[in-house]
Amino acid sequence: MDGRWIIELDRKEKKYLYQQLAEAIRREIDTRSLEEGEPLPSIKRLAKELKINPATVVKAYEVLEKEGYIEKKLGSGSFVKDRETQILNFASGTPSYDFFPVEDFKKIINDVMDNDGARAFEYTEGQGDRALRVALKNYIQKYNIHTNEDHIHVISGAQQGIDIIVKALVDQGEKVMIEKPSYTGAIGAFRSRGASLIEVPIKNDGLDLKYLESILVEEVPKLLYVMPNFQNPTGTSYSTYQKHRLLELAEKYGFYILEDDYLSDLSFYSKDSRTLKSLDRHHKVIYIKSFSKIFMPGLRLGFLVVPEELQEAILEAKLISDISTSGLLQRALKEYMERGMWERHIERLKTMYSRRFDLALDLIRREFPEEVVFKAPKGGLNFWFQLPKTFDFTKFVKDLEEQGIRIARGEYFFLTPPEEPSFRFSIANVDEEGIRWGILFMAELLRKAFRRKGRIEDREKQDLIL
Amino acid sequence: MDGRWIIELDRKEKKYLYQQLAEAIRREIDTRSLEEGEPLPSIKRLAKELKINPATVVKAYEVLEKEGYIEKKLGSGSFVKDRETQILNFASGTPSYDFFPVEDFKKIINDVMDNDGARAFEYTEGQGDRALRVALKNYIQKYNIHTNEDHIHVISGAQQGIDIIVKALVDQGEKVMIEKPSYTGAIGAFRSRGASLIEVPIKNDGLDLKYLESILVEEVPKLLYVMPNFQNPTGTSYSTYQKHRLLELAEKYGFYILEDDYLSDLSFYSKDSRTLKSLDRHHKVIYIKSFSKIFMPGLRLGFLVVPEELQEAILEAKLISDISTSGLLQRALKEYMERGMWERHIERLKTMYSRRFDLALDLIRREFPEEVVFKAPKGGLNFWFQLPKTFDFTKFVKDLEEQGIRIARGEYFFLTPPEEPSFRFSIANVDEEGIRWGILFMAELLRKAFRRKGRIEDREKQDLIL
Repeated sequence: MDGRWIIELDRKEKKYLYQQLAEAIRREIDTRSLEEGEPLPSIKRLAKELKINPATVVKAYEVLEKEGYIEKKLGSGSFVKDRETQILNFASGTPSYDFFPVEDFKKIINDVMDNDGARAFEYTEGQGDRALRVALKNYIQKYNIHTNEDHIHVISGAQQGIDIIVKALVDQGEKVMIEKPSYTGAIGAFRSRGASLIEVPIKNDGLDLKYLESILVEEVPKLLYVMPNFQNPTGTSYSTYQKHRLLELAEKYGFYILEDDYLSDLSFYSKDSRTLKSLDRHHKVIYIKSFSKIFMPGLRLGFLVVPEELQEAILEAKLISDISTSGLLQRALKEYMERGMWERHIERLKTMYSRRFDLALDLIRREFPEEVVFKAPKGGLNFWFQLPKTFDFTKFVKDLEEQGIRIARGEYFFLTPPEEPSFRFSIANVDEEGIRWGILFMAELLRKAFRRKGRIEDREKQDLIL
Repeated sequence: MDGRWIIELDRKEKKYLYQQLAEAIRREIDTRSLEEGEPLPSIKRLAKELKINPATVVKAYEVLEKEGYIEKKLGSGSFVKDRETQILNFASGTPSYDFFPVEDFKKIINDVMDNDGARAFEYTEGQGDRALRVALKNYIQKYNIHTNEDHIHVISGAQQGIDIIVKALVDQGEKVMIEKPSYTGAIGAFRSRGASLIEVPIKNDGLDLKYLESILVEEVPKLLYVMPNFQNPTGTSYSTYQKHRLLELAEKYGFYILEDDYLSDLSFYSKDSRTLKSLDRHHKVIYIKSFSKIFMPGLRLGFLVVPEELQEAILEAKLISDISTSGLLQRALKEYMERGMWERHIERLKTMYSRRFDLALDLIRREFPEEVVFKAPKGGLNFWFQLPKTFDFTKFVKDLEEQGIRIARGEYFFLTPPEEPSFRFSIANVDEEGIRWGILFMAELLRKAFRRKGRIEDREKQDLIL
């Protein structure tokens, strides 16, 4: 373009025009005729110059975008991607957007707008669109949660669910128990309300029950906030015994359990990824389901299953939080579920993530030095690592960042950071190639760090015979 | 259908098939062959039976829906509308959905999904999509608010804005001043946080400034929450003097003003509907703009303009409230504004609402007895009425409800309901015919009530000569 590129398309060639075009641009980028950060011509302009259909340009740009050659910027067109600074974001628990079922959802949104017209843009009931609540009820029945739509509340994402429950249940200075470590966003919501937080350590198969009971006999807090399947950040799954015991304690001492089910769908090797809610006979569990990790985070949708006696307080809290959740998106989600697309999506997601999971687990087991404390999770997307007090964590993070590798520092998941450094490694956002490269690079750093201190045998030899 | 209706369509007739079909169904409803609440056959089924295109049935149903003969229920098809119990909802401040720019918005949403694909479904920045913030900055420049996109925060509706500001600024027991009467949703958010509320009476041209200063000299509250243009519920507009004086006081005593601008766009007769924010030289105003009343409430979008020193606290509060607002809807709104559709929509809305406003005002002035205390607003959608202590308000409301007329009881807008009954009458949701009928019926009731007590001359005679 501007006389700078030469693009020749051959209509007689076997290759599709869009492939030829993509190839030509790829060549320009590889040879640096087109430089990083440089804008590409607009679709319209390029189509005109090459006398081809704009759809062909769109397709070519799509191919290049998928390959990581170019990137779109909203409202400003496409640009050559800055490849040096490509980030491997293992800090983020947000799914890769190439897993988003955009085409299906687009069709659905159009159907909703066609069928429902202006009604799709009205306020919905604060509790959520009834038809969606029915669809959600049916969905969780398959996970053994038997409720009715009256106990389901639609929320604008799980974070809002936590915020609403805190508003409904907790007043300033009241006690709330959380896992140690726990989800940062929940800690923030509890703190903002002025709750007094008590951390209960996570052990191998769930909470430290002895410690928990020692709290309960003194003064019963209002709430216990837990993620019993593939806990965030540790990846821990509560044992069946733990689950039942927690429910017994909630009944015996009279507190609510706030169960944040952000990932139980992604069970790969767990024999029991049942939710507490599905075992809850005494209506002590408030259940939060997030769709951000298993669907599309930008939709901001989730739901609660709420015990009868809390209904009114939670409705009131939702009303003052944002009145109601977008009706258009609720209607679309309902259709998506009713047409069976949801189930297909989850199956697809499980397949793709289980490949990443297996790869990561295998590499970690083979490559990480034994000084790194690690317990293999049975599902989910998070891996949790603890390091010795003496480990130079600041340098480790810096070295990773120089390579564009991001991890989530463990300290953020504690009220008071422990002396031993730790970090969360999430496979949600990075593809298999990135996972391989990232883990190998990390393992290299870790091995070097420990070898420098002379505390480790040469694992590489060991690896060769594995 | 089921042998019960006879529908004959004549393909040779001049009238379109959908018109013939609509006519036939209309006849069935008018003659009660099809009864109220009865389901209509599905589009597919009817198309098959009549051997016509489903689109023809869709069109016929659309016509009937517009005429009020039938109504769609999401996911369950269309039903004959219950015409006896049609509600004239003057209680609701939500705009009629026939004002929603659905077609334009549909096009935009499709463009966004086509252009941005999966990215439209990612998390956006907590503060909001930057491109949207730039568009919003440009929009409010026309209303003399000069800021930059860094001070704009996208929120999921104005209610969330209030909730977030309360989280960021107010702790339990801290003092917040509100107008008396004030918006119920704001009162709820302040109360939920445990704020101590102080009501400052609304007078003709704004707040009772003497009373306000008497509070300030004692102990300065954190916040003053106001709606200076077409206040909700009273419709009062603050004078220019009031606006400047409030800003002076905020600066002098050191408190923030939370300005809820829900309607300043709908100024019909006001000489000055400037916002406080546009006059705010000392960064004392936090500005909330709602789109629910002037766009489509179901989108759940709004924005804040925030003084520099509050930025961080507000970002944090947004994060724990719902992380971020739907990216898809933000991108769509940005496009909608950038393409100039927003301005056209507001112009159209103003024209339509000003007709309703004039009609209502004229009828109220002519028909309501003088015992009803009323001050004509200069714009907006709310009319506020105060009645004598002795007036039987319970009976009045019951009589209205029997006719399907709903009003908003004044007591909800006060912390402690005053002895004198009052009510808010909103023209947002009812068309001109409904407004005429509703006001005439109300006026009749009011006249009767006062005449029975022998306290009013015969206004009807007077009306004849007006």
